[in-house]
Formats: sequence, C-alpha cells, structure tokens
Amino acid sequence: MDMGMHTVLFLPHNRKIQVKDGGSLLRAAMEAGVHVNASCGGEGVCGKCRVIIESGVVEGGITEKLTAKDVSDGYRQACLSMVKSDLTVRIPVESVIDASILNMQSTPRCTARIQQMNLEELKEAGLFVPPVEKKYLELPVPTQQDNLPDVSRLVGFLKLEHGEHRLVMDFPVIQKISDILRRSDFKITATLVRPVHPGRKTHIVNVQPGDTTSRNYAIAVDIGTTTIYGQLIDLVSGEVLAQFGDFNAQISYGEDVISRIMYAEKPGGLEKLHEVVIGVVNKLIEKMIIKSGVDIEDISTITMAGNTTMTQLLLKVNPRSIRRAPYVPTSSLYPPLQAVTLGIALKEHVTALVYPQVSSYVGGDIVAGVMGSGLYRTEELTLFMDIGTNAEIVIGNKDWMACAACSAGPAFEGGGITFGMRATKGAIEDFSMDPFTFEPMNITIGNVRPKGICGSGLIIMVATMFELGVIDNRGKFNRNLKTPRIRETGGIWEYVLVWANETQIDRDVVLTEPDIDNLIRAKGAIYSGCMTLLEEVGLGVQNLERIILAGGFGSYVDLEKAMTIGLLPEMDTSRVTFIGNGSLLGARMSSLTNRIRQDVVDVVKKITNFELSETHSYMDNYVAALFLPHTDMNKFPRIKARLDARRQSHPPENVTVV
Amino acid sequence: MDMGMHTVLFLPHNRKIQVKDGGSLLRAAMEAGVHVNASCGGEGVCGKCRVIIESGVVEGGITEKLTAKDVSDGYRQACLSMVKSDLTVRIPVESVIDASILNMQSTPRCTARIQQMNLEELKEAGLFVPPVEKKYLELPVPTQQDNLPDVSRLVGFLKLEHGEHRLVMDFPVIQKISDILRRSDFKITATLVRPVHPGRKTHIVNVQPGDTTSRNYAIAVDIGTTTIYGQLIDLVSGEVLAQFGDFNAQISYGEDVISRIMYAEKPGGLEKLHEVVIGVVNKLIEKMIIKSGVDIEDISTITMAGNTTMTQLLLKVNPRSIRRAPYVPTSSLYPPLQAVTLGIALKEHVTALVYPQVSSYVGGDIVAGVMGSGLYRTEELTLFMDIGTNAEIVIGNKDWMACAACSAGPAFEGGGITFGMRATKGAIEDFSMDPFTFEPMNITIGNVRPKGICGSGLIIMVATMFELGVIDNRGKFNRNLKTPRIRETGGIWEYVLVWANETQIDRDVVLTEPDIDNLIRAKGAIYSGCMTLLEEVGLGVQNLERIILAGGFGSYVDLEKAMTIGLLPEMDTSRVTFIGNGSLLGARMSSLTNRIRQDVVDVVKKITNFELSETHSYMDNYVAALFLPHTDMNKFPRIKARLDARRQSHPPENVTVV
Repeated sequence: MDMGMHTVLFLPHNRKIQVKDGGSLLRAAMEAGVHVNASCGGEGVCGKCRVIIESGVVEGGITEKLTAKDVSDGYRQACLSMVKSDLTVRIPVESVIDASILNMQSTPRCTARIQQMNLEELKEAGLFVPPVEKKYLELPVPTQQDNLPDVSRLVGFLKLEHGEHRLVMDFPVIQKISDILRRSDFKITATLVRPVHPGRKTHIVNVQPGDTTSRNYAIAVDIGTTTIYGQLIDLVSGEVLAQFGDFNAQISYGEDVISRIMYAEKPGGLEKLHEVVIGVVNKLIEKMIIKSGVDIEDISTITMAGNTTMTQLLLKVNPRSIRRAPYVPTSSLYPPLQAVTLGIALKEHVTALVYPQVSSYVGGDIVAGVMGSGLYRTEELTLFMDIGTNAEIVIGNKDWMACAACSAGPAFEGGGITFGMRATKGAIEDFSMDPFTFEPMNITIGNVRPKGICGSGLIIMVATMFELGVIDNRGKFNRNLKTPRIRETGGIWEYVLVWANETQIDRDVVLTEPDIDNLIRAKGAIYSGCMTLLEEVGLGVQNLERIILAGGFGSYVDLEKAMTIGLLPEMDTSRVTFIGNGSLLGARMSSLTNRIRQDVVDVVKKITNFELSETHSYMDNYVAALFLPHTDMNKFPRIKARLDARRQSHPPENVTVV
Repeated sequence: MDMGMHTVLFLPHNRKIQVKDGGSLLRAAMEAGVHVNASCGGEGVCGKCRVIIESGVVEGGITEKLTAKDVSDGYRQACLSMVKSDLTVRIPVESVIDASILNMQSTPRCTARIQQMNLEELKEAGLFVPPVEKKYLELPVPTQQDNLPDVSRLVGFLKLEHGEHRLVMDFPVIQKISDILRRSDFKITATLVRPVHPGRKTHIVNVQPGDTTSRNYAIAVDIGTTTIYGQLIDLVSGEVLAQFGDFNAQISYGEDVISRIMYAEKPGGLEKLHEVVIGVVNKLIEKMIIKSGVDIEDISTITMAGNTTMTQLLLKVNPRSIRRAPYVPTSSLYPPLQAVTLGIALKEHVTALVYPQVSSYVGGDIVAGVMGSGLYRTEELTLFMDIGTNAEIVIGNKDWMACAACSAGPAFEGGGITFGMRATKGAIEDFSMDPFTFEPMNITIGNVRPKGICGSGLIIMVATMFELGVIDNRGKFNRNLKTPRIRETGGIWEYVLVWANETQIDRDVVLTEPDIDNLIRAKGAIYSGCMTLLEEVGLGVQNLERIILAGGFGSYVDLEKAMTIGLLPEMDTSRVTFIGNGSLLGARMSSLTNRIRQDVVDVVKKITNFELSETHSYMDNYVAALFLPHTDMNKFPRIKARLDARRQSHPPENVTVV
C-alpha cells in the first residue's frame, strides 16, 4: 500500500475511501459521496461540518465553535481537519435525518481518466520517428580527381552511405555549406526534415560542424484565445525538457475571437495582433531555452496549433470573413513556413508547421486533439469534445469523422450565471445537498470562503438538485420545499448556497432559475450538436463507445453529474478519457512522429464539417435537449432508474425540514 | 533585289560583291577578298588605296593626295569612297605585281551564320508553353451551404473546371486571397507556375482582381563578368519588349573572376559584390519596365544565368573554393527562390530561377547556351564554344556531353599582345596583305587611324601571314623577305602594320613574334581541349558535324581564318553558327518554354566535366597544337591543299620587293 495514503471509513454510511496524507477530511467525504453540511466552503466559519473521529489521527479541525468536551469527545470541524492516519469518522446524527441517507448519498465524484502520451508505446510501435533527424557525416575531402560541388558531395554521400533519396538542400544551407565543410575538415552533422507527404523531398535544413546528433530539439505551441502554452521537446529521448504558459497578450484587444476579428479589421489591427501573439510565443521560447539550457542552433522545428482565428492571426491572414455569414476561413492547410518569416525568434533553418483547420469554428486545436488523442486511428465510435465558450465536437472513428462547433455560450466558464466565475480561488467547485434538509455542502477552490460558482460546481449543483427533486426537469425549483434557502426574490426563484456572512463578498451567493436555464441551454446546444451529427450519419447516441474530453474544463467536470444534466451522453464513465490540452498534445506528437504530420492532411479532408444552423434537425434536437437530462429519458436509462428509485422511496415534497 | 544594295565588280580580279548603299568601298574590297594597300586604317592619310571607278557613282574619296587629272580619270581613295550605285572598280596596276594575284586573293571574309530563336517554330512544335500561366476564374460565391475555405474554393475550381492538379498556393497568396476575392466579387486571375519537374506541384503564386490574363511578363538576365544584359519578355506573344545592358559594377572590385573571388573573401566583400550586382540587375529591370510600360505586378518570373563565380556572388554564396585547387563550386543546382529574398526589386510573388552550373569554370552561362542553342536536342556531334578570357567548350549531342574550360589567356581580347586592345574604335579589325610587296590593308573599327589590334584582327593577320609564308608554322617571320616592314627590334622580330605617322599614337603599330606566340598558345589551349574531350570519348575532330559559337567574340571571328590558324577544327563554314549571347538566349528560352527548365536538370547531370590539367593526354595535345594550324596537317586538309598550291606557284622567298 502507498505509504502516503490513508483509509478513511465514514459511519454510519460505512463507506471507505483512500485519502492522501494531509488531505482535507471534508473533501474526502465529498469524494466518498458522504454529505456533510458545510455552507462556508471550508474555512471553518459556519461551524456546521462537525464530525466525530472515532479512531485515528487528524491534524487541525479544532475551532472556537467546539467546546473542550466536544474536542475530547472526538468532535472536529471536517473542513479544517487533515487526514494523518487511517480513520474512522462518524457523521453525527444531527446532520442526517435517518439511516435512509445511507442509500441516498451523492454518487462518488468521478472525473475522466487521464489519457497521456505513452512514449514507450510510441517507440515500441516504431512510431517514434521525429520528422527531423540529424546525421553525422565524415565526407571524403575533395581532390583533383574528385572535385564535385560541395552540395553534390553531401547529397551523394547521403544517398550512397545512408540510403537517403529525394534530397533537396535549402538555400540558406547552400549559402553556408562551403565554409562549414572547410572549417570542420568535412566532418559535419546534417539536419534532415522528412517530407510531410511520403514520396516528396527530404530537406537538408542545416549543417553544423562536428557531431551534434545528440542535440536535436523541437518546440510545440498551443495558441489559445486566452492562453498560450509551449513545450521544448528533446527529439532524441522524446522527453519534454521545459514547458511554459502565458496569457495571450491579444486579450488587451478583445476577450473572444469575434472581438479580435473586429480589431483585426481596423487599420493596422491585423499587424498588431500578429505581432503581439508572436511576442508571447517568443517569450515562451526564450524561457524554455533558458530553462532547458539548449543551444538555439539545435532547435530544428516548431509546430503550432490554434483555433481558426488564432491561426490566421498568427499567420497574419485577415480573419474578417470568419465572423460573417457564411463563415468562410481563408484556408484549411498552410504550407510549412520558415519560422523567421513569421517573426519567430528561432534560427533561419527552422521550419514552422501549423495545424490545419476544418472550418471557421473547428480549427487546428481540435484537429491537433483528434491527432494527439488517437481518435483518427481508433475503431470505436468516439465523441471528442473540447468545451469552452465555444464547444467543438467531433464524432467518428478511423473511417469517418463529423464535426461541428456549438455556440454553448459562456455558462461553463461562469458567464451568464449570476454568481458565475472562472475556476479560481473562492469558486464553489464541488457541492452536495442534504436530501432532507436541503442544506448545502460547498467546497471551494483554495478552501476559502465562497465568492461564486465555477462551471464544474454549477454542473454538480444542478445535477444534485435535479436528482433530489429540488428542481424539476425544466430546471424550476420545487415551490413546495420547506427551506429558507429556496426563495423568490424580485420574481426570480433562487437557492441560497451561502449566506452573506459566510462569503467573501457579504452578499448571499445564490443559484437562480435563469442561471439554471442558461446552463440547460448550454448543455442542450452541445448535446443536440452531438445528436445531430450522429443522425446525419444514421446513428444514435447509443452507438457511442467512447468519449474524449479536451481542454481545461474537461479535467474537472464530474462525469456522472455531467451525464445527469444531459451534457454528456450516458455511458460507462470508464470509457471517458481526458487528454488535457489537446492542441499542445497534438503539436508535441507531430514533433515526435512524422506519421502524424503525414496523416493529418488526410484526416482533415476526412472530417465533414456541419454548420448546425444549416442542419434541419438541429433545432428540433436542441428543443428536445432543453430538459434535464432530455425529453427522451430512454436515452439516459441509468439516470432514469436512479430517479425512479428515489421517487418511490422519498418523494421530496413530503419531507419536512428539521 | 534589295533597293538599298549595289553590286560592285572589282577588276582585274573579276570579283563581284553586294554592298549596302553608302558602304565603304575599302571594306567592300576586303569582303570580296580583294587586296588594296591601305595601311592607315581608312582615314585617307596614307593615300595608298587609289582605285579607278570605271562606272557608277561613289560619294567622297577625293583628297589632296589626288591631282585634278587623277580625279577626272576616275581615281578615288577607296577608304573614303562610299558606294552609291552599282560600280565597276579597277585596282591600278601599281598595286598588283601581276595577274597571278587573281588566283591568290585572300579568302572572302566569312563569319558565322546567326542562329536565332524562332518563335514561330517553337509555337508550331507546341514548345511555347511558358512556365507561368494566368487563368481568369469566375468562382462561385460562398453560401451557407457552400462555405469552403477560400483557398479550397479556388483550388477545387481549378481542379474541376480547368483540369489542374497537384496545386499548392504560396503563402503570400494565402495571406491576401480573402481580401482580393471579396474585392473583386470572386472574379480573379490566378498566376500558375508550372513545376520544373513534371509530377511535382504547380504553384499558385499570385491572384489579381479581374481579368489580367493578357498581361504576363518575364525577365531574363545574363550576368556576365564584364556586362549584364536583361530582356523583358511578353509571355503571351513571346516577344522581347525591352532589352538593356550595362557594365557589371563589380568591375570596380576586380576585372576578372579571380580578383572578384579574392575581394569576396575580405570581410564584407561578398555582401558588397552581391549588393552591387543586384543593383545593376535592378537598374536594368527599372529601365525595361519604363521602356515597355508594363505594370511590375504583372511580371511573374525572372531567370538568370552566369558563370559559376557570378552565380555564387549573385546568390551571396561565397566562391572562395572556386579559385583554389581542387576548384570546388558550392552547388550545381540552386532551388527556385523568391526574388525579393535576393534583393531583386520585383514583387513578392516572383520566383527567381538560376541556371545550374557544371563545375567551377563551366557555369550557368554555358549551360544556358547549351539549352538555348538546342545542342542538347541535336543528333549531330556538335562543338559549342564560348571564347573570352576563359574559353569554355562543350562537345556532344543529345545523348552525351563533355565539357571543359580552357585557360586561353586574354589574347583574344587583346591581352598579352603588344598593341592588343578590346574591339573598340581604332582597333584594326580586318587585314589583308599584298602577297608580293607584303604591304598591309588595315581596316579599323570606326574607320579611324589605327591605335592597336583587336582579337578578330589578330587572327586574320596571323592566318594571312601564315598563308603567304610571311610566318612559318611556328609563327616565326621569314627572315629573308625584303620589306622594311619586317624587322628586328631589340632582338624581337616584328611586322610594322602602321607607321607612326599614320597612327593615332605616334608610334609604329607592330605585330611581334611574342604576340604571335601568345595567340598560338591561346588557340592551342582551346583546340587541344577540344581534341582531348573527343579522345576521352573515343572520337576525333573529323567526327564533328557542327560548331556553335557563343559570346561577343564569336560574332566577329572570320571562320576560314580561325580554321587556318587552328583555332577551330576545319569544317564546312556553313556548318558553323553563331548564337550571340548564349546565356541570355537560354534565360529567355526558359521563360518561354517550361520544357527547358525541366530538361536542364537532366542535361546538367549528363554533361561530364573534364579538368584538362588532370587529363593525361591534354599536355600532349596542347604541344601538338602549338603550330599553325597544327603538327598534324591531316586534320586540316583544306588548308594543307591551299598552302601546297601556293608554295608550288609562288615560293615567297623568291619574290623581290617592287
């Protein structure tokens, strides 16, 4: 057993969970699906999360809200207690109505399994073939009998001694080769870049004196609308030597892609946005070079991926028609470019590759995710989702793919939600509700007093309230429930998550019906997009075999809850994986295996883009999805069964508040 | 009959010749092979060229050296007489020893037939396929149902409607296409550049609003060591719209390639020479654009050819190893380049092609000549020569080619010759000698008093003196001849071409034995190079079927005389053609027919370069060629026959001066 892990047994639920040494006891309860009243988010303010430590050791958890007798009896505040050994913890009777809670706890938190690139697998499968390769060559020195041109000498030697064919030397190499050969006694290292299309030319992009074959590096960059991430990759070992991220400085000129496009249309705007994003990329490159200590001369390639607008701004290609019907991007594929021509602060020999786009709103970041996740190689019918302000979805397998962008709106990032906020300190990110008292258990990022709700918290709240009958399938509060937390204010029904005195903001933090409605519209847009794509190819959600989530949102979302509200199609959660930053993953993969660069050209042709607004069935599917989880409950049999069971045993409207 | 031409009959020779209206009577005599004593070069100073106009009209020719009676008797000075009608002209008896001269006149002047590019022939043969083509396209306007990326729309349309395949759009076009399409209502002209290798990609290098298909231009440039010539070519008609030449401004940094290379090795030298040559190219381009009135936007391509050193300097590729054994150039082929990256003042979309090199001393100018002259397509065994300071020779036909550079030395350009000079005003360019008196007939460029001898004059002098037995086959003067013009000065034997008082320089203009020796060495180097190449492939000079001369020198040289001294192998002179500036011709041909661009890659691989200094037989061949015309007279049967006939009738040593 892992020495840093402890087993915590919660009573009377009789539920066990593994917790890291020092972990929060309140979070442990949440993860175990054990509700503990805790409205203040974990700062010890509300004093409601009293638990009894029956055996084992916790650190902290003793506050002025507990008497000396409480403490000696083993009472602690769960939110301030850190697990330091195996524990037996009893939830006091005043926090539970009766034993039936034991069968009613929330489903355990379940986020997606992380699918990482497995370098060893790549190597074993023979796929670890970086598109850039260095070869050390000891060329014969010219004589009167053998005075071939220098370029012919090198190319001929590679043909004869290394079986290389279809070679072409880039002009900057031609310009310096004669000097380098003579400086190094004709012992040099040649850098070869393999063709993207098999059968095309291999480019000799650099020659260096002596043997530099052990120093060969690549850079991968994800150009996000909000953030830019870079990795510096060792092409000999395959390892990431450095990784940095930074905000996309274009934010100063517009928060989202539409406002960036509008700025780009102003005189000098395109140039400015291009310059600014290149500036961030260069800053990241500099940091990575310093961190890793590599010589910039040994960096051979850079691969970048971003959405269609970010890509066009990066390449100084005016994105004006992206934002106007009929939403035409300039290009799908871009040729390999000399990085310096874009202003990237790498050496002249460095080629920049940019991931291709499918359409105006399904861009290179998504294509990179499709490549990096292996979706394009799988037999299984897979749903790929990258959820942010815009959600992009791809459905398919190695034989076909369909994609669409859904205007989900900003609900998942806290936008349009009364107390919505990004997933930063003070955001309620996890939630549970006492099924009888409807008291909340709020957990915040940073374990501080709440100030708002982030996307993952919002989904859990709505799912929990729906399962407990606190809201109905249209997201309306049950007006009959006897709790002061559910109230009507100015004609709007809401649930008070945190009373003002327990917040950071001295206002009640509430969840309103319009908030819930916004969430339902957002999830409905995504789910109906998914259904529409499937219908277009004659399939249904029941045919889906796998879900891949990409992007920051996907790492936090509780899968079971996301299925409960109908954001994700119902599926065994073990078949859902999370790939993190798919754009960066794809860019890195392209650096390590040339097959990806080759395959992506076909893949991008294979992906059929659907403009949902132009697809007849989309509106019907959307309307049908504006319910929790959906009009058609047969699509969600697991949830239906859970709801049916609960309704039979505990019709919530009959419960009286303690 | 041409109205501007007159027939002149010379008596007693009974020789007729056609002369342009206003042409010099002295030159007419020379061309007819009729000797008239005339040492002053044609300014009327020596007064020796008296002739009698028996019928017809001349203008001028009356000087103070003629009495009134002379004039009324029909006497004129030939050098100042201009032909204005058909004439009968008698050469007075005092200028001829006896009638045997009638059988002994010099061979008529015979320069090479000019072989020009025949545009109509190209068109008929289907070879008029410029590598750059414009297509006017009316693209379907995007709709919600058809919102392909702009690039895909254009490429797809070209595929579907024009049968174009393997298309790739250059990045600068991608950057501007969206704007141009929308500005022009999707009616545009695309500029396509065909691949050099069939099967490779066709590049879309430009898009322009509206229909510009009638405006498509190319530029061809010859980068010579001394001069640079440019042509602006209409790719629709094939015509040359403008042509300019200028000195290569690199001359300020060294007269010949070796001194240029030395300058390029100094710090900043390479950059300076590059900048200076590009400056001249840009000046020529500007002049041609102004002259032709074309829009610079409609110039699609530039093709350049030069010797190996000029090419490397043009491309900023250090030529240092060209001048050092084992004489290694940097590259044979150079990839197509964006012209602006070289600093060429054309638009961003213009591709620059540079003719490939065979070796350090057989460069792109020669390859261009091989392509432009059609040598690479002929069945006939052909000798191609470009004679300047360095003479380059190529021997072969469509199946094989061998080449070499001969260090001929500067004799053909007047270098190393006591009174040698370039072919400018005052240079003796034509010469004849009275076979009995050994009096000269000098004709100068510009018909002014002589100041020196140019290359073509030198060849004629030596050939004439050799045929008349004035010099022997080793180039030594016959010490027995009784003429004051042959004399020994300071131990050196010489022939006085012009007495000091008849010159511009107040010194006797002479031809010395060392001068003749220099010429013999120069022609020996070339001839033996030719023999060596033939021997290497198991052939001999008798197998040659055709000679092609390129370069300025080739246009003036008297073919019969060049064969007499053994510079050219003996051959029917009708089988010798002159192509002028072969480098410019090849560059122009490449602009008009893409086949040339494709074929040149194979051709340059097909040409075997021989380093003569490394070829065992070369020195033997060289020594054998240090005679007039050669040790082996069987290689020159026509000359042998002429000499034999002359010796039998008039052994020169028996002649007494009148």
